[in-house]
Amino acid sequence: MAAPAIVLLSGGLDSATVLAIARHAGHDCIGLSFRYGQRHAVELAAAADVARALGASEHLTVSMDLRTFGHSALTAEIEVPKDRDLQAGEDSVPITYVPARNTIFLSYALALAEVRTSRDIYIGVNAVDYSGYPDCRPEYLDAFQRMAGLATRAGIEGSPVRIHAPLMHLTKPEIIRRGLELGVDYGLTRSCYDPDPSGRACRRCDSCQLRRQAFAELGREDPAP
Amino acid sequence: MAAPAIVLLSGGLDSATVLAIARHAGHDCIGLSFRYGQRHAVELAAAADVARALGASEHLTVSMDLRTFGHSALTAEIEVPKDRDLQAGEDSVPITYVPARNTIFLSYALALAEVRTSRDIYIGVNAVDYSGYPDCRPEYLDAFQRMAGLATRAGIEGSPVRIHAPLMHLTKPEIIRRGLELGVDYGLTRSCYDPDPSGRACRRCDSCQLRRQAFAELGREDPAP
Repeated sequence: MAAPAIVLLSGGLDSATVLAIARHAGHDCIGLSFRYGQRHAVELAAAADVARALGASEHLTVSMDLRTFGHSALTAEIEVPKDRDLQAGEDSVPITYVPARNTIFLSYALALAEVRTSRDIYIGVNAVDYSGYPDCRPEYLDAFQRMAGLATRAGIEGSPVRIHAPLMHLTKPEIIRRGLELGVDYGLTRSCYDPDPSGRACRRCDSCQLRRQAFAELGREDPAP
Repeated sequence: MAAPAIVLLSGGLDSATVLAIARHAGHDCIGLSFRYGQRHAVELAAAADVARALGASEHLTVSMDLRTFGHSALTAEIEVPKDRDLQAGEDSVPITYVPARNTIFLSYALALAEVRTSRDIYIGVNAVDYSGYPDCRPEYLDAFQRMAGLATRAGIEGSPVRIHAPLMHLTKPEIIRRGLELGVDYGLTRSCYDPDPSGRACRRCDSCQLRRQAFAELGREDPAP
């Protein structure tokens, strides 16, 4: 049997699309999620639903306590920014940035890949919509892949892991269109940085704004609550 | 005030020496340890003692559950190898290897460095004694440093973090000699992979053998219990 692919799964729209792409490429897939003190833990239930709906063979959730380090709106008690003008072209790093988050997530994926002899890690990073995050850029992922090739048994034995970021150069509407072609039910996904206690999206944080605009561009209603 | 250095602290002999070296270089130091399901959790108490004795300004411990992934003797219920012939020059990766461990540890250190605006991470890896671990080699650390420079705010703003591995090319006796010069109390450190419930070293695992041989070469008694 072919080695599985590891797919980082947040419960959001992007990573659901990535799982569909990895499945479409013929991979048996293990979904990997993180409980890292995020305020939007409703994402984790969404990740499990998405994994099931798209036929992942397993879904693992790793707990960790980034809150020890403080600092970000996603993990600390800082107000999530609302109604920001996303067209204003601010190129500063947004406050919702979690320090070194993708590096930590990819490191766990690398550990799991090594244990399961996987050669493929999929991540839903995207350079177009999230240019403010340093660890969402192609040159970052290339450097991670090179490091990973030197870090592991598989790497030094000549079968290094590959980091796949199939959404890297797609716009949000292009991502949704691709996912719809592959049968993704976006009603299962959650993207809001600051949902209410029932899990309902705020519709005003950056993530909600990007998502709503993208569905609008495609002339569709967002099926998520 | 100068930004602090982050020092990975296992409670063992090597990382205690590294903390002494970082302190001697003039750094204010934050010790960073990990509770990762290791059977030798007595190390964590040792790490706290070492941090205090060598004047670290803080000591943080991050909990994580690598056991979800299974696989290694240090985290799973597999027998730790005893009385191995370390001179036999086996170059296979030892069973006590934890998958992607240094990558995960360094990733957390990178997150903490970013939050505390630190530019320096110290790690006690050593190419001489641990050549079986792929993530203890200079080329691995160089690749991690390059990736880190692309991953973070500080990196893209021109102040990337530096990974320091001051023990890389020292033998175990050289490490101990350097630590003794800097006032390290090795009686506080723990190295055994398989201590008994009271914390007493087995004296037969690879780590105990290397440590005992090193003190013997220096004509000294190992002060640890």
